[in-house]
Amino acid sequence: MTKKSSAASKKTSKPVSQTRVKKEKPVILITNDDGVTAPGIKNLVEAVKDLGQIYVVAPDKPQSGMGHAITIGHPLRLHKIHSIENVETWSCTGTPVDCVKLAVDKVLHRKPDLCLSGINHGANHSINVIYSGTMSAAVEAAIESIPSAGFSLLDYSIEADFTGARKYVRLIVEKMLSSKLDKHTVLNVNIPSVPVELLKGFKICRQAYAKYVEDFIERNDPHGRHYYWLTGEFVNFDKGKDTDVWALDNNYVSVVPVEFDLTNYALKAQLEKTWKQ
Amino acid sequence: MTKKSSAASKKTSKPVSQTRVKKEKPVILITNDDGVTAPGIKNLVEAVKDLGQIYVVAPDKPQSGMGHAITIGHPLRLHKIHSIENVETWSCTGTPVDCVKLAVDKVLHRKPDLCLSGINHGANHSINVIYSGTMSAAVEAAIESIPSAGFSLLDYSIEADFTGARKYVRLIVEKMLSSKLDKHTVLNVNIPSVPVELLKGFKICRQAYAKYVEDFIERNDPHGRHYYWLTGEFVNFDKGKDTDVWALDNNYVSVVPVEFDLTNYALKAQLEKTWKQ
Repeated sequence: MTKKSSAASKKTSKPVSQTRVKKEKPVILITNDDGVTAPGIKNLVEAVKDLGQIYVVAPDKPQSGMGHAITIGHPLRLHKIHSIENVETWSCTGTPVDCVKLAVDKVLHRKPDLCLSGINHGANHSINVIYSGTMSAAVEAAIESIPSAGFSLLDYSIEADFTGARKYVRLIVEKMLSSKLDKHTVLNVNIPSVPVELLKGFKICRQAYAKYVEDFIERNDPHGRHYYWLTGEFVNFDKGKDTDVWALDNNYVSVVPVEFDLTNYALKAQLEKTWKQ
Repeated sequence: MTKKSSAASKKTSKPVSQTRVKKEKPVILITNDDGVTAPGIKNLVEAVKDLGQIYVVAPDKPQSGMGHAITIGHPLRLHKIHSIENVETWSCTGTPVDCVKLAVDKVLHRKPDLCLSGINHGANHSINVIYSGTMSAAVEAAIESIPSAGFSLLDYSIEADFTGARKYVRLIVEKMLSSKLDKHTVLNVNIPSVPVELLKGFKICRQAYAKYVEDFIERNDPHGRHYYWLTGEFVNFDKGKDTDVWALDNNYVSVVPVEFDLTNYALKAQLEKTWKQ
């Protein structure tokens, strides 16, 4: 592995260097969107606990599908709990993004060296990165100049087997800690739900154009009032072999580097030429 | 204005062409995040109502800061209301993104030709695009292959003067309707809060790296329990003169083309070279 800088390091880097791991343990903030008691977050802690000084600040209830929501209109609470052995753990009444903000400002009183989110129960590949509370927490960290990664296992079950996920979480976090990464780095890591011996390694991918084709179930409630409930079928419109969906379908762990500059530069160039005033 | 296609039109385009405006009025879906009764949405309808067949489906309450949140855990309701004169208007109990999904599936039963969101009371420039319900509704439409734009006026007041905003909303929507735009087009349009005669025109921009440096007010509630409430100060870290923040500071309307493929391609290339297994 090289430590050379890259095209991606446009801004000043704040490396989480191997040197630091040897000298002093990096501070690692862990959060999720399934809630502080979910098996996924305990498996994430388990996978990396000897790699740094771990702090957990996570929602007190499931927050799936919350995207990048923040709480403006009402106050937030933080409660220290004894949920994960030997790890300082806080339960927060807010969204995953709120958890990152509160952790930095009011729990750590400093930026951690790394932020990890997950392990999510269920996929966050393709367009799901936008809806995902898990990934939004990671993106929030990167906006705050904290390198981060979100991890998701393609298994919604509370009984999910995290063996393969833990192996690759550790591998990727070790790589992050030993690489000279830009401070705005975000990785979206998804792990197929297959026995660990079937996993073929990880692949660096792009986000597939694949999404849920939505539908709403329409019913009447017990009082005769009509309601709608979101459902849908996942469809992959993207036939590329460099996508996260392709990698996962082929038993690779997918790693998509994510950015929060949403500017569509190609369209910017087009409109600059064509939209005259 | 040219009608030639562009580098941005990688996928098959679904143009909202000038021809269609002449032959049959385009269907325009309007939503927002300030709620269906906000002055901003009425001003948006007012600005474009003769350009198409207008439908409004918007949240029944303020949903600022909801980002790309969707409602999974409970049902949604839709109520037809008489809020905006001569326009079919629906109030929805969900988030702005829920409104777009429900509008397409259950109100229009088709994709509209254009989706407009706003006019937001307050700025959605720079990193705010990620937190904004207004912009997330527009992004959701683009994911659904509906060209879209979100509009925001840099004035939070309920008494805000929308004269300049209406002028530029109309100008930009006319340009969208007469341009051959990719079906995944999203524009983030912000309008300075100055008298219309001081507006210098619009500028096609990139998203500034500017954000709120957060803080939380800490207090005790009437029952002696501690709480935190999000606050913060806006800081522009980006000195570029091609950004939305620069444009707005200089009395230009900022137009940032937005995309929902969040892949960081530069970092992807770097990791493909350096992260060996």
